[in-house]
Amino acid sequence: MTINIAIFGYGNLGKGVEAAVVKQPDMKLAGIFTRRDPKTISPLSEGVNVYHESDLEKMKDAIDVLVLCGGSATDLPEQTPRWAGVFNVIDSFDTHANIPKHFAAVDAAAKSAGKTAIISCGWDPGMFSLNRVYANAILPDGADYTFWGKGVSQGHSDAIRRIEGVVDARQYTIPVAEAVDSVRAGKMPELTTRQKHTRECFVVAAEGADQNAIEDAIVNMPNYFADYDTTVHFIDQETMDRDHSGLPHGGMVIRSGKTGLQNEHNHIIEYKLTLDSNPEFTGSVLIACARAAFRMNQNGDVGCKTILDIPPAMLSSDSPEFLREHML
Amino acid sequence: MTINIAIFGYGNLGKGVEAAVVKQPDMKLAGIFTRRDPKTISPLSEGVNVYHESDLEKMKDAIDVLVLCGGSATDLPEQTPRWAGVFNVIDSFDTHANIPKHFAAVDAAAKSAGKTAIISCGWDPGMFSLNRVYANAILPDGADYTFWGKGVSQGHSDAIRRIEGVVDARQYTIPVAEAVDSVRAGKMPELTTRQKHTRECFVVAAEGADQNAIEDAIVNMPNYFADYDTTVHFIDQETMDRDHSGLPHGGMVIRSGKTGLQNEHNHIIEYKLTLDSNPEFTGSVLIACARAAFRMNQNGDVGCKTILDIPPAMLSSDSPEFLREHML
Repeated sequence: MTINIAIFGYGNLGKGVEAAVVKQPDMKLAGIFTRRDPKTISPLSEGVNVYHESDLEKMKDAIDVLVLCGGSATDLPEQTPRWAGVFNVIDSFDTHANIPKHFAAVDAAAKSAGKTAIISCGWDPGMFSLNRVYANAILPDGADYTFWGKGVSQGHSDAIRRIEGVVDARQYTIPVAEAVDSVRAGKMPELTTRQKHTRECFVVAAEGADQNAIEDAIVNMPNYFADYDTTVHFIDQETMDRDHSGLPHGGMVIRSGKTGLQNEHNHIIEYKLTLDSNPEFTGSVLIACARAAFRMNQNGDVGCKTILDIPPAMLSSDSPEFLREHML
Repeated sequence: MTINIAIFGYGNLGKGVEAAVVKQPDMKLAGIFTRRDPKTISPLSEGVNVYHESDLEKMKDAIDVLVLCGGSATDLPEQTPRWAGVFNVIDSFDTHANIPKHFAAVDAAAKSAGKTAIISCGWDPGMFSLNRVYANAILPDGADYTFWGKGVSQGHSDAIRRIEGVVDARQYTIPVAEAVDSVRAGKMPELTTRQKHTRECFVVAAEGADQNAIEDAIVNMPNYFADYDTTVHFIDQETMDRDHSGLPHGGMVIRSGKTGLQNEHNHIIEYKLTLDSNPEFTGSVLIACARAAFRMNQNGDVGCKTILDIPPAMLSSDSPEFLREHML
């Protein structure tokens, strides 16, 4: 049984999904779909066809799961409900506050079409969410901590690039080691935003630009930097391209909880990701979820789901018998 | 809605389950059942009734889920299929090689009674298994590593106690730091048994016993110690009672995997437990699984399951809507 995957949207995440499909024994890439002119796109892998968005509906029978790789701000709120009415779909919708609204819209569309949709797949939301839920269910009396990094925040890098006189920028989010140590030691500290993460920025300034003014604009930027200790390094474009072209990321979800009738025992559950490529890892999670969407749909389990609704064995290419014998 | 939990078997694990029930907002302890004389048992918590095993069947309507806290060697292979024919049941069966056989026996009993059973709950098998399955589904091209400890191995402690001249013993399993570092650095080392763990033993010898003979018997014991670097410390009973009375444990499941069309990116997924009390943590996992068994049974999902079959949201006392809004 081969699962035919289609990708809609060919940016960093779409490429990550493409790379992930290659690693899965039971999947094939049925095509890449784009809103751009298909001729302008060269897939990373050989023998993959690129189609215009307008061909999607025609290829209904050739696609088992459509993986939506657009952005959460404007693409997915429109695309996921639209295409859940035609295909089993997966997305990585990550605007946490709008998940209930997005879920409702996708659920209605998927149910009326008899399709299965899984939203907000990735690592946060996604694997981190999953670990928060497991750890809270096991240790109801405790505290949750999420640390991100060290890794590139694309949103923060973009925010710096919008400052006048900035040619290029990369921002790393870094967990504060003392905070992590204190959590791991079971001290359950109360941590402010500033105590949890620092921000490190690498900036290429335009010739003649006022570097002091740029640095001021960065460190005082509300929401993005003002609540953090931020350091700014000015570098040249060559150094940027050589040392900062990757998209590493990662982080930790830690729950510290008490058991015992006198709360005499403490337990630490930690889930940690160290990722060389954020989009390729996210794409890998999406693709495992695509398998589950396909199977749940075959079982008649339609509507909108999240990773919290998926029996873990459904994500695996191995059979339940194999998993019990070799992984349990 | 309150879920009525009963405990069968009141050793370390039974006490751990008792402590875990107290922390859950939607659960009540319906009773502790034992093969011993109930009068000899004093529960840790107040207002809990202790009954003889022979009363179990009579209390059918007062119990939603029965948590079996016996041993995997002889108790559970007999008890879990037996009681899955009467109750929804949970066990922590941990003889990995016999899981398929145990599963089949429990599945047949539960299905014919219309009950739901979840076997092999705990942390290994259990949470560690879950993390192996998730990590393999996401990163099919990679290697798995499991490290145990630092923690007390009760099986190894018991093995030492059976040596002539030994009054008391405690054995700690300790991961080798260099091996863990190498795995975390993405080096995907091939590790022998000796390279992964060391074993540290604390022994109280009988007066006049030959300590050299005891040490020789430990370090050369096949299966248990011969393949490891083992250190033995002789201490007095007072020191044992003061410094080694706890049952801490833990460990790590790490998967190191590649993505990218040229395998150019590496990713590390690590799940780590640091537990002050092995039985209380195991009991906490069992109790979260008990909630899922109850709900799955209400949904008509009968037969034998493992944690790999449970939609994560079913383990939580919170509603799916709450989880999507606050944990995703």
